[in-house]
Amino acid sequence: MKKYNVGIVGYGWVATAHIPAINGTSLGQVTAICSSRKLDSTELSARHGGRITAYNDFDELLANPDIHVVSVCSYPYDHAKQVVAAAKAGKHLIIEKPLCLSLADLRAMQKAAQAAKVKTCVCFECRFSSQFLATKSVIDAGLLGKLHYGEVDYYHGIGPWYGQFRWNTRKDAGGSSLLTAGCHALDALLLCMGNEVVEVTSYDTKSRSKVFAPYQYTTTSVTILKFKDGSIGKCAAVVDCLQPYYFHTHLVGSEGSLLDNKFHSMKLHTNKHAWSALAMKLLDSGDVSDHPYQSQFEAFFQALDTGKDMPLTSLAEAARSHEVIFAADRSAETGRAIKCG
Amino acid sequence: MKKYNVGIVGYGWVATAHIPAINGTSLGQVTAICSSRKLDSTELSARHGGRITAYNDFDELLANPDIHVVSVCSYPYDHAKQVVAAAKAGKHLIIEKPLCLSLADLRAMQKAAQAAKVKTCVCFECRFSSQFLATKSVIDAGLLGKLHYGEVDYYHGIGPWYGQFRWNTRKDAGGSSLLTAGCHALDALLLCMGNEVVEVTSYDTKSRSKVFAPYQYTTTSVTILKFKDGSIGKCAAVVDCLQPYYFHTHLVGSEGSLLDNKFHSMKLHTNKHAWSALAMKLLDSGDVSDHPYQSQFEAFFQALDTGKDMPLTSLAEAARSHEVIFAADRSAETGRAIKCG
Amino acid sequence: MKKYNVGIVGYGWVATAHIPAINGTSLGQVTAICSSRKLDSTELSARHGGRITAYNDFDELLANPDIHVVSVCSYPYDHAKQVVAAAKAGKHLIIEKPLCLSLADLRAMQKAAQAAKVKTCVCFECRFSSQFLATKSVIDAGLLGKLHYGEVDYYHGIGPWYGQFRWNTRKDAGGSSLLTAGCHALDALLLCMGNEVVEVTSYDTKSRSKVFAPYQYTTTSVTILKFKDGSIGKCAAVVDCLQPYYFHTHLVGSEGSLLDNKFHSMKLHTNKHAWSALAMKLLDSGDVSDHPYQSQFEAFFQALDTGKDMPLTSLAEAARSHEVIFAADRSAETGRAIKCG
Amino acid sequence: MKKYNVGIVGYGWVATAHIPAINGTSLGQVTAICSSRKLDSTELSARHGGRITAYNDFDELLANPDIHVVSVCSYPYDHAKQVVAAAKAGKHLIIEKPLCLSLADLRAMQKAAQAAKVKTCVCFECRFSSQFLATKSVIDAGLLGKLHYGEVDYYHGIGPWYGQFRWNTRKDAGGSSLLTAGCHALDALLLCMGNEVVEVTSYDTKSRSKVFAPYQYTTTSVTILKFKDGSIGKCAAVVDCLQPYYFHTHLVGSEGSLLDNKFHSMKLHTNKHAWSALAMKLLDSGDVSDHPYQSQFEAFFQALDTGKDMPLTSLAEAARSHEVIFAADRSAETGRAIKCG
Amino acid sequence: MKKYNVGIVGYGWVATAHIPAINGTSLGQVTAICSSRKLDSTELSARHGGRITAYNDFDELLANPDIHVVSVCSYPYDHAKQVVAAAKAGKHLIIEKPLCLSLADLRAMQKAAQAAKVKTCVCFECRFSSQFLATKSVIDAGLLGKLHYGEVDYYHGIGPWYGQFRWNTRKDAGGSSLLTAGCHALDALLLCMGNEVVEVTSYDTKSRSKVFAPYQYTTTSVTILKFKDGSIGKCAAVVDCLQPYYFHTHLVGSEGSLLDNKFHSMKLHTNKHAWSALAMKLLDSGDVSDHPYQSQFEAFFQALDTGKDMPLTSLAEAARSHEVIFAADRSAETGRAIKCG
Amino acid sequence: MKKYNVGIVGYGWVATAHIPAINGTSLGQVTAICSSRKLDSTELSARHGGRITAYNDFDELLANPDIHVVSVCSYPYDHAKQVVAAAKAGKHLIIEKPLCLSLADLRAMQKAAQAAKVKTCVCFECRFSSQFLATKSVIDAGLLGKLHYGEVDYYHGIGPWYGQFRWNTRKDAGGSSLLTAGCHALDALLLCMGNEVVEVTSYDTKSRSKVFAPYQYTTTSVTILKFKDGSIGKCAAVVDCLQPYYFHTHLVGSEGSLLDNKFHSMKLHTNKHAWSALAMKLLDSGDVSDHPYQSQFEAFFQALDTGKDMPLTSLAEAARSHEVIFAADRSAETGRAIKCG
Repeated sequence: MKKYNVGIVGYGWVATAHIPAINGTSLGQVTAICSSRKLDSTELSARHGGRITAYNDFDELLANPDIHVVSVCSYPYDHAKQVVAAAKAGKHLIIEKPLCLSLADLRAMQKAAQAAKVKTCVCFECRFSSQFLATKSVIDAGLLGKLHYGEVDYYHGIGPWYGQFRWNTRKDAGGSSLLTAGCHALDALLLCMGNEVVEVTSYDTKSRSKVFAPYQYTTTSVTILKFKDGSIGKCAAVVDCLQPYYFHTHLVGSEGSLLDNKFHSMKLHTNKHAWSALAMKLLDSGDVSDHPYQSQFEAFFQALDTGKDMPLTSLAEAARSHEVIFAADRSAETGRAIKCG
Repeated sequence: MKKYNVGIVGYGWVATAHIPAINGTSLGQVTAICSSRKLDSTELSARHGGRITAYNDFDELLANPDIHVVSVCSYPYDHAKQVVAAAKAGKHLIIEKPLCLSLADLRAMQKAAQAAKVKTCVCFECRFSSQFLATKSVIDAGLLGKLHYGEVDYYHGIGPWYGQFRWNTRKDAGGSSLLTAGCHALDALLLCMGNEVVEVTSYDTKSRSKVFAPYQYTTTSVTILKFKDGSIGKCAAVVDCLQPYYFHTHLVGSEGSLLDNKFHSMKLHTNKHAWSALAMKLLDSGDVSDHPYQSQFEAFFQALDTGKDMPLTSLAEAARSHEVIFAADRSAETGRAIKCG
Repeated sequence: MKKYNVGIVGYGWVATAHIPAINGTSLGQVTAICSSRKLDSTELSARHGGRITAYNDFDELLANPDIHVVSVCSYPYDHAKQVVAAAKAGKHLIIEKPLCLSLADLRAMQKAAQAAKVKTCVCFECRFSSQFLATKSVIDAGLLGKLHYGEVDYYHGIGPWYGQFRWNTRKDAGGSSLLTAGCHALDALLLCMGNEVVEVTSYDTKSRSKVFAPYQYTTTSVTILKFKDGSIGKCAAVVDCLQPYYFHTHLVGSEGSLLDNKFHSMKLHTNKHAWSALAMKLLDSGDVSDHPYQSQFEAFFQALDTGKDMPLTSLAEAARSHEVIFAADRSAETGRAIKCG
Repeated sequence: MKKYNVGIVGYGWVATAHIPAINGTSLGQVTAICSSRKLDSTELSARHGGRITAYNDFDELLANPDIHVVSVCSYPYDHAKQVVAAAKAGKHLIIEKPLCLSLADLRAMQKAAQAAKVKTCVCFECRFSSQFLATKSVIDAGLLGKLHYGEVDYYHGIGPWYGQFRWNTRKDAGGSSLLTAGCHALDALLLCMGNEVVEVTSYDTKSRSKVFAPYQYTTTSVTILKFKDGSIGKCAAVVDCLQPYYFHTHLVGSEGSLLDNKFHSMKLHTNKHAWSALAMKLLDSGDVSDHPYQSQFEAFFQALDTGKDMPLTSLAEAARSHEVIFAADRSAETGRAIKCG
Repeated sequence: MKKYNVGIVGYGWVATAHIPAINGTSLGQVTAICSSRKLDSTELSARHGGRITAYNDFDELLANPDIHVVSVCSYPYDHAKQVVAAAKAGKHLIIEKPLCLSLADLRAMQKAAQAAKVKTCVCFECRFSSQFLATKSVIDAGLLGKLHYGEVDYYHGIGPWYGQFRWNTRKDAGGSSLLTAGCHALDALLLCMGNEVVEVTSYDTKSRSKVFAPYQYTTTSVTILKFKDGSIGKCAAVVDCLQPYYFHTHLVGSEGSLLDNKFHSMKLHTNKHAWSALAMKLLDSGDVSDHPYQSQFEAFFQALDTGKDMPLTSLAEAARSHEVIFAADRSAETGRAIKCG
Repeated sequence: MKKYNVGIVGYGWVATAHIPAINGTSLGQVTAICSSRKLDSTELSARHGGRITAYNDFDELLANPDIHVVSVCSYPYDHAKQVVAAAKAGKHLIIEKPLCLSLADLRAMQKAAQAAKVKTCVCFECRFSSQFLATKSVIDAGLLGKLHYGEVDYYHGIGPWYGQFRWNTRKDAGGSSLLTAGCHALDALLLCMGNEVVEVTSYDTKSRSKVFAPYQYTTTSVTILKFKDGSIGKCAAVVDCLQPYYFHTHLVGSEGSLLDNKFHSMKLHTNKHAWSALAMKLLDSGDVSDHPYQSQFEAFFQALDTGKDMPLTSLAEAARSHEVIFAADRSAETGRAIKCG
């Protein structure tokens, strides 16, 4: 038996991605699943391996002292109350993005986690992707110098062909194009720029295509950001495009630039008129199968095991990204710049 | 002898690009050059071909009735008074970008040209480049549907290795990164989006590299735009980067997207998970040798010859781009959104 | 239960390709298989899913009123009598290519289908491939103008390493290189040129390689075609080559050309000296796994459901391609041009 | 002084290509030019180097005993009488393609050359191109085995942008698309197949584009050929396309195939599902600058010097290609197959 | 039942690669496995298919007359005594590389096999890889002329992430970087040069990375070789690098060169300033899944069946490669050149 | 007038490469040329620009006090006495590679330069090439860690098509393949490994091609090296190959590897199974036009101007490379390892 038992709440598509990733780590395993639908323990165990108990009542799951971690895979609007309850029950927490749809909910989760002293891991797993591990290493090795401008954008047409579309088009579920999907790009931008946001302005719009008509909110936005150290950034979140998936990154610094998997650094005396290229797997699809859940969960269980906080994607870190997203969405709504921090 | 004699004012690097381009057209030829330096007519004629008269006094040049067109190649801060004088003298006008450094000067030029009923051609020659002729044709063929989001950006490190750097670093000469160089990108964005701008917000900053320290103004800016029809856009102007020249274009519409020389269109039933590619010469350098001056001037002389207005790059059209640039620069300066139109 | 039950006749390699494709549609499912070999219903059901009844006698299968569609997957020389019988029994028909080996058989099938008013779908599934859906869309969007010359060719070395080789080398089974395999290319050429053939001339030959010695007919032919509107075409059918599979397409029109996945169109103002490229899956193998059976069958069941004729690959449409093939083969045999239509 | 003095007759574009190529050889030099226009010897010498005498009367040129070779660069309809006269005058001959417009003229030239025992070199210089030297070497090394099918095609849109267009559109000057330009492709096909043609059938047509309306003859043709050894071939000649220049080659033999610069050979045990690639300069433009005139002329002067016949492109060899072209054109005109040989 | 029953001795990773490869041949099948661990016959049969009997005692396995072939998959230091015993028992032999760790053991094995007249196949399966089948064919076709210089190198970082690392770091198991892994490269070099080695000199060293510290021997060596005919060669064996797997080949001859999958041959008249490319699967990983075990074993069973010796990888042939390796390792150890043969 | 006047001795091909490179610097200019042939000052000045005096007697040139630097471009066997004379005359020295053909000459040159306290620059200009500036920067940035193995090789077929061939085939002029051309590769290897050589072993041979028969020495050699810190290296020098020019570099260190313009570094967390790529101009031809003479000479004049020693390519530095080359050649000759240092 491995050391950490995990109970999943919400048994949809994302749960089926969490389960093998958790079971693939050296320290964790899924032992419980809670859903509003009636599930059968035997069938779940057969499907996912190991011994899984089905729950219909989340409180019952929380009452089980053999469960050490709860992974919140429910709809975004259910996250806050479940996280608060789980924290009170002393469970460590894995929480899917987006964390929630309002600043109030965000604060409630943070407060509960701090009070209960539980560890938290938010699914901004792109920080553990091949692309951003390499990108961050290039920055940290000083090859780009000090960054003063950065763009990270999310282009991914989420239409009827995509599972999430069914519920994600609702305002109270998806929230905004930046929150529901672009959050990965904005979070990656903050990772790269490594600095505090002081102001954002955001403009938004919608495609005229019928395909995307069901959305109750604007499905394209572009946000510009000012950082405390004077550098600036930009994040476009476009879920109503018809094109290949594109997670666009362009970073500009005092010693060079990075564009997706290409870079130039004055420090290496390479040809400035052509890009050098980094061997990396680009984020090129919205599917979790391309995302490094397992590396992230491994890091979380290792953190639990050594009593440390989760690196890169703790609730505290992820909360900062959400604050900027909420500010950007408020800017688009109110038509004026919003101060942060 | 060809039909239109052209007098050049300002004999710097850009003049040496205008001269062969004008002489390469079927209807125009350079017959006069005016400079604050003493020039020798014989030497100029030998160097550039044809018979060129050197002038030291611009009024003398204007007094010559055999000169039909004046091409303004002087420093940007000299444009307004020269354009006004030339228009009064009844000369048609070719004017280098940027047109001027203030809205007041812009209005003065427009007024003078209208009053004198002279024809005008502003050097936004990127509109005549292989890249944007093809891009515009793809849009006009309906392959992208109705555009709702567009980005055109200008990344070109203009440091001591680049001729322009000598004077361009001065606030009263270069103006801003958007005005001095990014203007091509913003003008191309307006061409593609084909709609009236109603509001802009712009953030700006500077590289920490010593290389760019001489600049008296911020050398990186990012501007977001709202159009009258609800669509939105974005333009980054970065003259302090250290990377290959990059004129980045990304257009998103109801039937597909275009990214530089790549595109996807639902109308062609191609694979949505990969880009189709357009054979085109990308704008990949800041040098005029890559820019289609000659095509533009040929169009201007043809317009003169048929009594029509210059297509695509008349003063009226170019003035709209400059208004947006001035608004963006004001936004960056004042820290608030600026209404246009 | 889905709406249309399908009975397969002939349980060879092609049947194993039809079954999952049929079961993959939204409206059809395989419920019967008839073979001259003794098959076991339980085993067939286990292997292919669903409930499949094994038949040894085709008449018995036809007598089953619960079977709505018959898919003819037998040897080409058996098609005619089976199609006629099935039509008489009121079954709709899916028929593998080639339809038959003689014009007499073709007419018999057409007559029977018309008399019985059953719907028909012939397996010219390349018309539903990514490559030809895109190619046809490019033509229909007018990017090539009016076509006046077209080539579609089939290069695929069918030797002992290829299953079909066992029986396909017989004159009374394979017929000719154009009929047995090149028919896909000729059919695609007619799709693209969209016009009636009035005359063909064909020359044929054989490889000197021992590998292909077992063939009882010439295994390379080249056919040229005249269309009613004056345009011309060409189709090479080569099953005795030793090279990568190649489905070569070259279309020449009044606004541009298309070469496989490349094209040039004057309408897009791209560079005429280089090809633009279309993102598409090229037909690059003779295996059905590369062929779009499922899309074709889905279209057929949808047609049945709405009482319409099968689009693109009905018996009437496919018969026209076979008439041209028979004429071409007659030309090669007789050594003179053959009139069509 | 080099050994062979050459007199040029016809001072158009092709002459300006011959002159430097001849002067670039180790044994030949241009010393005379004859044109119907008045030319100045001093000016010609200055332009082309060396000492060149201008002639207005071809007979005068022929009367000069210091001229050893005549290069015939006049319009195709003037070739025959000039060649006959030059041969009678004992001059060796370089003759541009096409040789002439009729079989009668061809026979007259052959007869005169044989009678006078002069050496001849016809400008089928593609036989000396990098592409066909390598292609022929691959065949001769046995890597393709015995060829049984071959295609060589010529796609080159010759419109108003191309110098030749001015006179080439006339029936009595251009002749046919196969004769005027496609002759290079047909000649290369015969080189590769290395066998005698016994029959041809040709179909022809025209583009509907206005661009090509001035042509007095059909500008697209496709010809199929039977060879004495049973192998077959095909040649398309398309001068009314709008696409990149394409000299398409596809050869199929008993050990492998060659497609342009790609090949597969069973003898090398490489992967049959992918092409191997040959490093070669493809014929990718209609300009003589891409054609290997100089290699060809060097070979001719070496042949003269050793008293041998010109290899690869003697009049006898080139005559065979022209006979096939005339037969093909007659087939297109008469609508029936034409026997050759 | 197929003709040859094979008993495996040593049930580690390499055995699991041999089993399906043997079972995939037309004549052989695994019927016995012998391991020092207790194995269960039923479980083995279920896992690998067929009927497999588990043995704990190798002598018992050898005593079984139904076993015709023994495949030696144990640790290298166990090979010699097992091979000798199996030969004495009259079993034919498949032996994994490296054969053994000393010349004495090598001679013992050779002697036993000769005495017993059993057939032998050593796992230098790279000789049956796509890469070296093609490379050898290019040499044999004379495209490179007579070789006078050759390099084949092995770069493959074998660290803790690689299964073998566990035991391979021991001096008495791995031996040397050249013996444990580089042996494939040296063996391939001998295959290509096709000549007897007369002298070797080898230098060796180790990476300073902690990752490779566990190795008890030097993990990088470079060996130069003199052949009897005067040609020379070189083989680097590097198992302590951090880079992509690279099996580097460079052969230089009197008609051309080959570099990995690229070549130039004067015989094909291709462009000497660029490489032609051969379509082949490069050896690009240390995993057996990339290695052609099955082709090799098929050839072995065919040899058994026709009473011939194993081509390319018999014990006699492989012994020659090991002699050179032992000489090279002795050179590195003693610091002087070692004579061979 | 610029500050440093340069006199050239030896007016062959290499001199014509030095002259524009020297004149292209900011501080130097060629004012004298000395040759054994009679040259005309006026003609030389016209050809190369500036004012150049022709000398027939080297002592006269040395006697001219206005000449500050002598560039030695004569045959290698003339270098020593000219360098000694020039040093005695107080001239600074540019010396072409190879420096000389014997250790005695090398020592004489070193002694003379030291005694005269003149500055020296040896033409190992590859150290100033784009490729090795970038390679060295990658090493110095620590991206490869500590190097323990390195290869730099020189493959360049120097046959009759190459100017140098005329005299270079003589033993007393070319010396050896390593000395005459491979010296660039060996020098670059020492630059990269940055360590003292303690021993070398070299094997040599010749191509069997007639093309290279005129060489009086072996034209292929491979040398292995031991460095003081335990790392090892290898250098092949092949001037008798028939393939594209290839300056092969492979460096292996404790954090990654570099292969030509590709690299992997564990420090950047990129994908270890694929190479990252550096934008650089590879040394891809033996022509000086590809070599960075001008950068090197600029650095030399700057060194003169600031009284510093020449960086990277001083006589002292270059002497170390020559010592290793002489040792390697002695090893090949004597058949045993040679100690260095």
